[in-house]
Amino acid sequence: MALHVLHYLHHGHAQWGVVANGAITPIPGEFRSTAEFIEANPIERLFLPRGLTIPESEVQWLSPVTANQQFICQGANYRQHMIESGMDPDVKKFNMIFTKATSCIVPADSPVVKPNGVQFLDYEIELGLVLKRDITSRESVTEENLHDYIAGAVIVNDYSARDIQIPQMQFYKGKSYRTFGPVGPYLCLLEKQDIPKLKELVLTLTVNGTVRQNDSTAGLVYGPVETLTELSAVHDLHAGDLLATGTPSGCALSIPSPEKQRAAAQLPEAEKWRLFLKMQEDRPQYLRAGDLVEAHIVSCDGAINLGVQRNVVVDEAA
Amino acid sequence: MALHVLHYLHHGHAQWGVVANGAITPIPGEFRSTAEFIEANPIERLFLPRGLTIPESEVQWLSPVTANQQFICQGANYRQHMIESGMDPDVKKFNMIFTKATSCIVPADSPVVKPNGVQFLDYEIELGLVLKRDITSRESVTEENLHDYIAGAVIVNDYSARDIQIPQMQFYKGKSYRTFGPVGPYLCLLEKQDIPKLKELVLTLTVNGTVRQNDSTAGLVYGPVETLTELSAVHDLHAGDLLATGTPSGCALSIPSPEKQRAAAQLPEAEKWRLFLKMQEDRPQYLRAGDLVEAHIVSCDGAINLGVQRNVVVDEAA
Repeated sequence: MALHVLHYLHHGHAQWGVVANGAITPIPGEFRSTAEFIEANPIERLFLPRGLTIPESEVQWLSPVTANQQFICQGANYRQHMIESGMDPDVKKFNMIFTKATSCIVPADSPVVKPNGVQFLDYEIELGLVLKRDITSRESVTEENLHDYIAGAVIVNDYSARDIQIPQMQFYKGKSYRTFGPVGPYLCLLEKQDIPKLKELVLTLTVNGTVRQNDSTAGLVYGPVETLTELSAVHDLHAGDLLATGTPSGCALSIPSPEKQRAAAQLPEAEKWRLFLKMQEDRPQYLRAGDLVEAHIVSCDGAINLGVQRNVVVDEAA
Repeated sequence: MALHVLHYLHHGHAQWGVVANGAITPIPGEFRSTAEFIEANPIERLFLPRGLTIPESEVQWLSPVTANQQFICQGANYRQHMIESGMDPDVKKFNMIFTKATSCIVPADSPVVKPNGVQFLDYEIELGLVLKRDITSRESVTEENLHDYIAGAVIVNDYSARDIQIPQMQFYKGKSYRTFGPVGPYLCLLEKQDIPKLKELVLTLTVNGTVRQNDSTAGLVYGPVETLTELSAVHDLHAGDLLATGTPSGCALSIPSPEKQRAAAQLPEAEKWRLFLKMQEDRPQYLRAGDLVEAHIVSCDGAINLGVQRNVVVDEAA
């Protein structure tokens, strides 16, 4: 049965514990990284001492994914999002992979800082998968053995500075600003029988209470089985590493239609991007200081509930 | 004065030492990462015991940059390379940044493995800069204080699977295959007075003895001063992290002219990429099993000599 784990600060000490009904049962031991925690605490043999619990309200959240891990992301990976972007999800061409700098990882209740000079700050709710073990050569990941590779699931918000990310082509910089990667609050550890539920999680993101993104992981184009199989043939992955699986439709970003993109390709580069940025100016959905972004992911039966992220947008200090 | 450091295996032990005239003077201590080595051994206070030296021929090279560090890369960053790619280096738009997975890092004399399914394997000689200290907030890096930020220089070969990298838009996957990042052999530690020489290093890459790339770092578009200043405002950097500063012209990759790119933008995506790949088929410069790639970087006065990388191309085992 899925177990919800929290990484938290209590009386100044970083600790891991299992959360149920607002109470934390601390897990004995010190684990300085997600890798150390996961390798020491497989869900099948997780030892939970009876007795002592701590009210969740007494602790300070930490990210369940630590900054030493890899932060790997998939792009354009929801059917409806692809269709709205002028792509055909049934003609899959490739699994778009990029990374975020791990110093952007913050706890799930952190403010998100809109950097000076960034105009178009956007949100992207994503299901994050946390790896269970190292992968150092080609592997055949299947629906049957996926539980050997995935320790659990988290909420990720892949905040993005669209005016940097899109005109600069490589996504890394515009998605790596400090605070652009809230992770958590809960790392839901999964047993083999929980794995099929990864295909029926509901993702919901609101801004100031209004729903902006709402979709099911049933709409994922490249699932974890094919993504991990492909990545295993490219580079190493480690226990505790984070794979963010892409975001559904509903972001602030407005992508020109394929026709407009073809027309824009005839323009000088500077003019093309001037028009792109002008198009974004008409989108009131972009985030401003004071906005409250809330994200939650839950399975239909409620057995997996990754908690709620709450990020208030603040401007970077001048 | 610049000191040339080697990270090596000797009698099964990983060790660091200073190399001069084919002899290594071991540096006392165990340093499990580039960060640990650099923080414990600032060039100004590097303690070199007299007496014992080891012939360089007796050791096995290791990469002077360890896999725990960040591997950050600049793209399209040499004047001549930009001109050949149809870009105007005098109208700088942005500093293109991407990453490689650090599991691609290998010693400088490693074979480079052409993965199954990859058709167009290309080389990219680059000057790599290794950071001296952590950067965790906005900093103003200047020509005067650059020595506080850069510990030293290495050769990097940013091997790239062009048939993955270019059509998939995000460079990460096509540049992250295992063995695609030889680093070293020498990490040249720099003192303040050596820093100006970073602008007059000569990079040369040959394939089977024929010169393919030959340029000077004088042609760099975004230098380390502006790159580190910009990145400091985005995300954290750490002592020992690697910044690969981009490659000069002369790669196997053939980039269509701006006119051809505009014409191709009118085609369906699949047709556009079919033409791109067909164009690469006419380039005999792409690497094949058995090719020998040699790369070296040296200052005009010979005071900085980063050694020679030698990589034999091999096919991935079936």
